[in-house]
Amino acid sequence: MRGAVLYGPRDVRFEERDVPKIIKPTDAIVRISATCVCGSDLWPYRGINQVPRPTPMGHEYCGIVEEVGHAVTSIKPGQFVIGSFFASDNSCPNCQIGYQSSCELKEFVSTAQASILRVPLADGTLVATPAVPSQDLIPSLLTLSDVMGTGWFAADAANVKPGSTVAVVGDGAVGLLGVLSANQMGAGRIIAMSRHESRQRLACEFGATDIVTERGDEGVARIKELTSGMGADSVLECVGTQESMVQAISSARKGGYVSYVGVPHGVEFDGEKLFYSHVHLHGGPAPVRRYLPEMIKLVWNRKIDPGKVFDLTLPLDQVAEGYRAMDERRAIKTLLRP
Amino acid sequence: MRGAVLYGPRDVRFEERDVPKIIKPTDAIVRISATCVCGSDLWPYRGINQVPRPTPMGHEYCGIVEEVGHAVTSIKPGQFVIGSFFASDNSCPNCQIGYQSSCELKEFVSTAQASILRVPLADGTLVATPAVPSQDLIPSLLTLSDVMGTGWFAADAANVKPGSTVAVVGDGAVGLLGVLSANQMGAGRIIAMSRHESRQRLACEFGATDIVTERGDEGVARIKELTSGMGADSVLECVGTQESMVQAISSARKGGYVSYVGVPHGVEFDGEKLFYSHVHLHGGPAPVRRYLPEMIKLVWNRKIDPGKVFDLTLPLDQVAEGYRAMDERRAIKTLLRP
Repeated sequence: MRGAVLYGPRDVRFEERDVPKIIKPTDAIVRISATCVCGSDLWPYRGINQVPRPTPMGHEYCGIVEEVGHAVTSIKPGQFVIGSFFASDNSCPNCQIGYQSSCELKEFVSTAQASILRVPLADGTLVATPAVPSQDLIPSLLTLSDVMGTGWFAADAANVKPGSTVAVVGDGAVGLLGVLSANQMGAGRIIAMSRHESRQRLACEFGATDIVTERGDEGVARIKELTSGMGADSVLECVGTQESMVQAISSARKGGYVSYVGVPHGVEFDGEKLFYSHVHLHGGPAPVRRYLPEMIKLVWNRKIDPGKVFDLTLPLDQVAEGYRAMDERRAIKTLLRP
Repeated sequence: MRGAVLYGPRDVRFEERDVPKIIKPTDAIVRISATCVCGSDLWPYRGINQVPRPTPMGHEYCGIVEEVGHAVTSIKPGQFVIGSFFASDNSCPNCQIGYQSSCELKEFVSTAQASILRVPLADGTLVATPAVPSQDLIPSLLTLSDVMGTGWFAADAANVKPGSTVAVVGDGAVGLLGVLSANQMGAGRIIAMSRHESRQRLACEFGATDIVTERGDEGVARIKELTSGMGADSVLECVGTQESMVQAISSARKGGYVSYVGVPHGVEFDGEKLFYSHVHLHGGPAPVRRYLPEMIKLVWNRKIDPGKVFDLTLPLDQVAEGYRAMDERRAIKTLLRP
């Protein structure tokens, strides 16, 4: 079997790896139908996160179950399944309260850019679709594994309600799907912050009502202008840098809600400034599993089409080009077909 | 008229000051029935906040209206009133959404340790009691001006609901009234963190079900032990230091709620740690005005007795001793009678 391995900055190779096997009785083996490159894969790709040794890559996946361990009861061979990037038992207290990405037994699924994948805690992690989907649904179903679930959590954690005024900081795939999610939740106004024409267009397709091209203080000033000086009810921070976090907090109204869903890189919050901002803050690794049943239904019934974020599709053996295109911002998100 | 003036670290003087007069047509002049020393007064008293010049002190107050400006319509001379430490118009967009302490016209009321006080924005700021109260209700009514309103906000901002498991970090007057507030909101279990016997006793009177005397990592370990390893649903951070903030965040369950209501002094949040803690964070200067009508009703009908936090009552001319007793933790909170 072949898969993607990161050797160091901008050095992704497609190479022979051992075929995954059942290790624990709760495992499943899944034949990947589609996988993709995540914005967070670019942190180690760019050398911002260190990669101490050659590292298999990929944590977004969907596909057909080939085999299950003897303790697996609900997931069966032949089913088409989607799972989160964090495997979870879906039954520990943290899972039961809806934070499956903080499951007491959580394991990061980290080898999905390959043709075959071992998924731990299969019963808790995987959700099967009603039937094997038609090919055209696969991109949208794939997004539910992380990027769409993360955008959905961003909107939920920022308390988006019917009629809310929402601002989205970041025009990557998560930010764009944050727009789509806010729209689904009934937001009255959605301001997307983007300076790239193709991303602006997709944001508008997903429900953005306003585009702000300015950044930093100027971007905040524009948001204030658009909201009678108050700021937005909900702000989704979908980047993970200090600059974007400050921009997000400053764009919220007093008592507003700021969510943050990308691993913060070098972000520090000044306690006193946060205090006087009066915002609510919530974030963390998205508990995608919580939302999977609802999101699958929306995609299955063709109510949403989050797969539109894939503007580049490549065979898996061209994974290196998939990373390059995203690194250079030529592509929003790359779908890979084994 | 005489009032308290802070000259420098541990140097509070009771001295002659000009009698306050109506300056703006929206002002009221209030004859103070009772005032008190706030935990936050100790920051400048201890020299942690600089005091560049002699500064009149005091921001907690209740009393009888003596005079109102010609634009004041709802507040009338002879009424007994309570107001927040932030004057607010109670009508700007921030006020209407419940964040009166971020009112667009807010003014800090900073000269209340005196016999007479000018209150700006009287119609928005002051709430009258149904009648002039009997003397025994005055301590509890006074707490509503800040300390009780802040404890109430701490519980509300930490999402305390019927049945919640709550932990309170800090056994000052705000923390103790956070216990009382959580109890009013129906918390199922309230863990007070305190190592002082008299404060533990009051916490239990106010509804604490458990006392944890350990601090820091040991304190967190005890909270985890008491909550089947999960942490508390709601944690009220009522101190404002880095140590107490870390303790609060670490004591919350995944997806739990942490509030912070004291001005943070030297507090920095590490973005990545906060991200993986998965907590909700909300705080800021308490929008006391939002809660005043409800809290007045509770005190007036003798459902709550927050005035119990005053374990020292002095005539106002002994204000210096009032500060000293709190600084040395001989008193929880000092009530001052002009």
